[in-house]
Amino acid sequence: MPTDTAPTDAEVACFEAGIKFGSLYHQFAGTPVSPDSAASLESAMEESIENQPHCSAVTVDVLTDELEAELAESTAEYTELTGRFLEVEIVVDYEGCEIVTRMAMEDGYPLMRLESVRDE
Amino acid sequence: MPTDTAPTDAEVACFEAGIKFGSLYHQFAGTPVSPDSAASLESAMEESIENQPHCSAVTVDVLTDELEAELAESTAEYTELTGRFLEVEIVVDYEGCEIVTRMAMEDGYPLMRLESVRDE
Amino acid sequence: MPTDTAPTDAEVACFEAGIKFGSLYHQFAGTPVSPDSAASLESAMEESIENQPHCSAVTVDVLTDELEAELAESTAEYTELTGRFLEVEIVVDYEGCEIVTRMAMEDGYPLMRLESVRDE
Amino acid sequence: MPTDTAPTDAEVACFEAGIKFGSLYHQFAGTPVSPDSAASLESAMEESIENQPHCSAVTVDVLTDELEAELAESTAEYTELTGRFLEVEIVVDYEGCEIVTRMAMEDGYPLMRLESVRDE
Repeated sequence: MPTDTAPTDAEVACFEAGIKFGSLYHQFAGTPVSPDSAASLESAMEESIENQPHCSAVTVDVLTDELEAELAESTAEYTELTGRFLEVEIVVDYEGCEIVTRMAMEDGYPLMRLESVRDE
Repeated sequence: MPTDTAPTDAEVACFEAGIKFGSLYHQFAGTPVSPDSAASLESAMEESIENQPHCSAVTVDVLTDELEAELAESTAEYTELTGRFLEVEIVVDYEGCEIVTRMAMEDGYPLMRLESVRDE
Repeated sequence: MPTDTAPTDAEVACFEAGIKFGSLYHQFAGTPVSPDSAASLESAMEESIENQPHCSAVTVDVLTDELEAELAESTAEYTELTGRFLEVEIVVDYEGCEIVTRMAMEDGYPLMRLESVRDE
Repeated sequence: MPTDTAPTDAEVACFEAGIKFGSLYHQFAGTPVSPDSAASLESAMEESIENQPHCSAVTVDVLTDELEAELAESTAEYTELTGRFLEVEIVVDYEGCEIVTRMAMEDGYPLMRLESVRDE
């Protein structure tokens, strides 16, 4: 029989980690970006999401090689930020649980994945 | 000694639920909203987030009483969507785990909370 | 010699029309969308931007044929809203000037264009 | 009798300036921000919008005094970016027309205003 339980600290930590990922992606997807402006966007994404509760580290890599490859095929000098230009790692600490999460492309889709759960 | 473990299904389910909440909030915060346009915004928020994987139900309530109270104090006819005008419930199903999450105001802040974890 | 002049009503009207277009695009780009959820998103986009000052009409067409074509080539059941799935017309009225603006794909890019300026 | 005319260069320039303002505001409104993360957000906002066509300069000032005043009244360490924490100037050049636009608070609202139109 299914049982309805109060969430564990590790489950709350995973929920918090998911909030950070969804926030980061949907706040910044669509931002105009070029190889020259990638660095300032990375910093802003990292520092803004690190403000959120229980978020101990955010590392954003805007893939300038991918940006340059896309722009080389067009007359445009910038494009919109989307998952295929991003690699992200977010670490959350909640009540002694450390959660490491990562986003990268897999089979053509940006996948957000729970890497590890460390419960002290 | 802390141990690093692969996430359980319930933990992944909680991570997925967090993604939906962060997505919903940061996609739609800032949208111009009035009592008359609240219903269409509710529907769009619900149906767009329900597209995301493992998301079985999204219920959005834009608090038109709160909107009207805010607009009564100003000359504006609309405002920007933010947490104090929202109540949201999101249900995620992942590998037999059902996660219920809710957002509402608490002590002046919009809090996202994991309500229950049901593991079959 | 260049002269610095106060803006005409028609110029202010064009500025206002541009604000509506930039707002609509950057508020909603990135929203998860599928053929089934396209209609509710169209309504929300129209009604939210019509709240903005001097905005008399917004018509949004989410191109479900284009969505279906993209989804047919993948295993995903939804994608993110972006310019190639959108046709938009926005009409602004400011001090008797009516501005009609339109966004559609041109040479592979979503172009926002000032269609006509009617000054009474 | 009203006449429907093709837009002048100055009118197109004003439309372009409006697009930049709407884009900037609705892309970044809702971003988590604190006094410590304000500088990186300013840079990202400036550089991303400067990517857009005909945009020659964007200057963003996140009002850290206002942020600090708001945070002093609460237990939170960050808030969401919104108009009352922003002053912005955007300059657009289109076919020899230089448009200067500015956003600042007026009577409790963030107003976007066309400052000057210089037609060479």
